[in-house]
Amino acid sequence: MSWQPPTSATSGPRVILGCTGSVATIKVPELARRLQERGASVVIVPTKNACHFLRCQAKVDVGPTSPNPKHHRGGSQAYVNRPERRITNNGELRGSDSEEQNSSSDQCSRCGSRSPFFRRRQLPHLLSGDVEDASLKSLYPDLNFVLDEDEWSVWGGRGDPVLHIELRDWAQLLVIAPLDANTMAKVAQGLCDNLLTCMVRAWDVTRPLVFCPAMNTHMYTHPLTMKHTAILKELGYIEVCVVSKRLACGDVGPGAMAEVDNIVNAVMQELPGAQRISHGPF
Amino acid sequence: MSWQPPTSATSGPRVILGCTGSVATIKVPELARRLQERGASVVIVPTKNACHFLRCQAKVDVGPTSPNPKHHRGGSQAYVNRPERRITNNGELRGSDSEEQNSSSDQCSRCGSRSPFFRRRQLPHLLSGDVEDASLKSLYPDLNFVLDEDEWSVWGGRGDPVLHIELRDWAQLLVIAPLDANTMAKVAQGLCDNLLTCMVRAWDVTRPLVFCPAMNTHMYTHPLTMKHTAILKELGYIEVCVVSKRLACGDVGPGAMAEVDNIVNAVMQELPGAQRISHGPF
Amino acid sequence: MSWQPPTSATSGPRVILGCTGSVATIKVPELARRLQERGASVVIVPTKNACHFLRCQAKVDVGPTSPNPKHHRGGSQAYVNRPERRITNNGELRGSDSEEQNSSSDQCSRCGSRSPFFRRRQLPHLLSGDVEDASLKSLYPDLNFVLDEDEWSVWGGRGDPVLHIELRDWAQLLVIAPLDANTMAKVAQGLCDNLLTCMVRAWDVTRPLVFCPAMNTHMYTHPLTMKHTAILKELGYIEVCVVSKRLACGDVGPGAMAEVDNIVNAVMQELPGAQRISHGPF
Ligand SMILES: Cc1cc2nc3c(=O)[nH]c(=O)nc-3n(C[C@H](O)[C@H](O)[C@H](O)COP(=O)(O)O)c2cc1C
Ligand SMILES: Cc1cc2nc3c(=O)[nH]c(=O)nc-3n(C[C@H](O)[C@H](O)[C@H](O)COP(=O)(O)O)c2cc1C
Ligand SMILES: Cc1cc2nc3c(=O)[nH]c(=O)nc-3n(C[C@H](O)[C@H](O)[C@H](O)COP(=O)(O)O)c2cc1C
Repeated sequence: MSWQPPTSATSGPRVILGCTGSVATIKVPELARRLQERGASVVIVPTKNACHFLRCQAKVDVGPTSPNPKHHRGGSQAYVNRPERRITNNGELRGSDSEEQNSSSDQCSRCGSRSPFFRRRQLPHLLSGDVEDASLKSLYPDLNFVLDEDEWSVWGGRGDPVLHIELRDWAQLLVIAPLDANTMAKVAQGLCDNLLTCMVRAWDVTRPLVFCPAMNTHMYTHPLTMKHTAILKELGYIEVCVVSKRLACGDVGPGAMAEVDNIVNAVMQELPGAQRISHGPF
Repeated sequence: MSWQPPTSATSGPRVILGCTGSVATIKVPELARRLQERGASVVIVPTKNACHFLRCQAKVDVGPTSPNPKHHRGGSQAYVNRPERRITNNGELRGSDSEEQNSSSDQCSRCGSRSPFFRRRQLPHLLSGDVEDASLKSLYPDLNFVLDEDEWSVWGGRGDPVLHIELRDWAQLLVIAPLDANTMAKVAQGLCDNLLTCMVRAWDVTRPLVFCPAMNTHMYTHPLTMKHTAILKELGYIEVCVVSKRLACGDVGPGAMAEVDNIVNAVMQELPGAQRISHGPF
Repeated sequence: MSWQPPTSATSGPRVILGCTGSVATIKVPELARRLQERGASVVIVPTKNACHFLRCQAKVDVGPTSPNPKHHRGGSQAYVNRPERRITNNGELRGSDSEEQNSSSDQCSRCGSRSPFFRRRQLPHLLSGDVEDASLKSLYPDLNFVLDEDEWSVWGGRGDPVLHIELRDWAQLLVIAPLDANTMAKVAQGLCDNLLTCMVRAWDVTRPLVFCPAMNTHMYTHPLTMKHTAILKELGYIEVCVVSKRLACGDVGPGAMAEVDNIVNAVMQELPGAQRISHGPF
């Protein structure tokens, strides 16, 4: 029941990648894989709102309607739409279509959408676990996720591990990319109502904490953004600055998350002994 | 799927009316109608807690048990208690009474109450939409609501609209009435975990933002209230001050939301070209 | 429907005991009973996260599998695992095992666990009330709890009581033990999104408010902890300092909640006329 650090590549640097409710979270899988390619062992800790973007992005990567999707990499066949039979409450055998109304746990908790990828019947091997959790893990089988729910299900009594402390002890570096306006405000003001912000609140300040803001240019230019950024830097956290460009919402201006390459580079610089990313002319 | 601005009266001034978890939210329908009478196009953005008060107030306006209620104005016949038949999971035909236990989506998400007005069976034309949303829209058919859930259901992938940005671009003025202690603290400190506070965080400060605090006199006299009010005014937001009176909770003192007339007046003053409300002796 | 102050011992001092999402909340039942033994009338107001710890602790106190548990004190026989029969939706008689999938309300809302103690079928006398609430009340029949949900279910229209005001008016003293890092940050910054923090925001500062921080030593040494503690003390709140010891998570250092004896003593000192706890050599 207790959380186990990822078993693969435990010899490489240990990185926690926090992400939040910004559109830029759609780049998190790519960012995590780039860090893994550099030898890092990566655990992703998304906020609840970040999960919405991770799920939406998975649909783009895999394709929403393909009955036999080719997964990006390390893909499993878990999504193959195979007929399934279940015993109903009444003891009858029933096809899977009729149960759609009942499988509320297969919904995205944010938008309520019922993507074919969220349906429990397509994930029979995961039925016994947490479905919300299972969904992300099965959508991205090559990545490691730890969610808010895990923190509470892991602790059942005195002596049980406290997950935000375990993770904090395990990691050599914490990078929050993207860091949205809301979580930035929470961190700057000591609020900690989820796994990510609890880890930050308990962070060992002798270890690097890298943050990569990402917000609409109108949010970014709000005077409080500068104030909160200043507090984070006073705490010793390392900023990877936003860039100016056309944002997902159509507006143009500063606020976009730095390029994935630059974030990987910034992280690697803080990890002594780790492999630098090359920007050479290949 | 994307949000559409209200079609009626789009030539008049465009106003967003935010409201929060204060008892004074029961006056929001009246305030919205007054603004509409002045020619404004109004979109109401309530917090989750504000919805509780809007639902409770609807019961007062319409009357909870009337089988054929006369709605205040622009009322529909949606609430008429007509017999309805449905096919059950077992393929049987069943009367509507027996399904009450299952229609959890018809409950108020705050108090769990099951007013006759929240019952899905009475809103057959709304079955396909978001019921929480539908409830408010059907309780107040002459008003426009946008809720937290809408923000997330509208965005499904890169290129989709970001609702708090769309709304912010559409509106000429944002009035928050009532502004409760909690949302005041959030706004003053840059927290933005729902649609209303995201709009505020991204607000174009060259456009007026009017706020109307409303809180119990004991909350109001807390030193932090003054501090937060000062921050809001430094940001250029316009305060419509509280008044002293006997509050809903029985206490007497400052903290009550300003009169609806005064709020309408303050809003109209900030909208050049809009019709001023008359306080004349008729 | 309206909240009623605890009927027992209403002549003694009236104390509200707030508690939050810290492991130290497992000591809250003991603390409440000690205050009751000193003649105080105690109402416990836990945050949602605090409830998780109260439920886990109840399992320890009672024993999770005993079919006929001896409850600590004032225990009831409510948990005795007796066979039960229920009429299903189809009108059939059914054993209780088959309904486990449907009784979602018996789950802990934090960890999703389904302890035998949370199962509705074991609490037939409570079926008509709020189950979440009922669970705590039945797990600790000698203690009084008021929960976030109560605040919203009690208010249905103008004139109904506002629970955080009622409680604030009733109490002579508010002690928050344990006060975790998150709620400390919220209180220091005026946020009030649940019953406990609303009471604090409306607190009558002429009456004592005692707070007992409890957090992991890494959270505790974060510079914001000192800043927030200073704000609380400026507001006139009384601190019962943390102690240094081996924490539940294994770390050693300051951050542990003060001993129950010391908290009781601090509370009694603030209640004129109340019986002091003796630390004599018996
Ligand atoms: C097992 C466990 C133990 C925790 N212990 C503490 C603690 O002792 N102190 C603390 O400040 N936070 C602790 N936390 C973190 C809080 O529970 C978290 O910040 C939560 O959001 C607080 O919610 P609340 O302040 O609304 O009760 C713990 C979390 C878990 C999962
Ligand atoms: C489609 C969509 C895109 C958003 N993009 C951003 C963003 O890029 N940056 C930001 O600060 N907030 C953004 N938000 C707002 C946050 O999601 C919102 O503040 C949320 O409450 C943050 O939650 P979290 O900080 O717990 O993840 C977006 C919201 C939506 C619905
Ligand atoms: C019946 C009732 C009435 C309330 N009235 C007020 C009020 O007038 N002003 C206020 O600041 N808070 C009031 N509150 C407390 C807020 O509802 C609470 O702080 C809530 O978390 C605010 O949520 P929101 O800011 O997201 O809307 C009231 C709560 C209840 C249950």
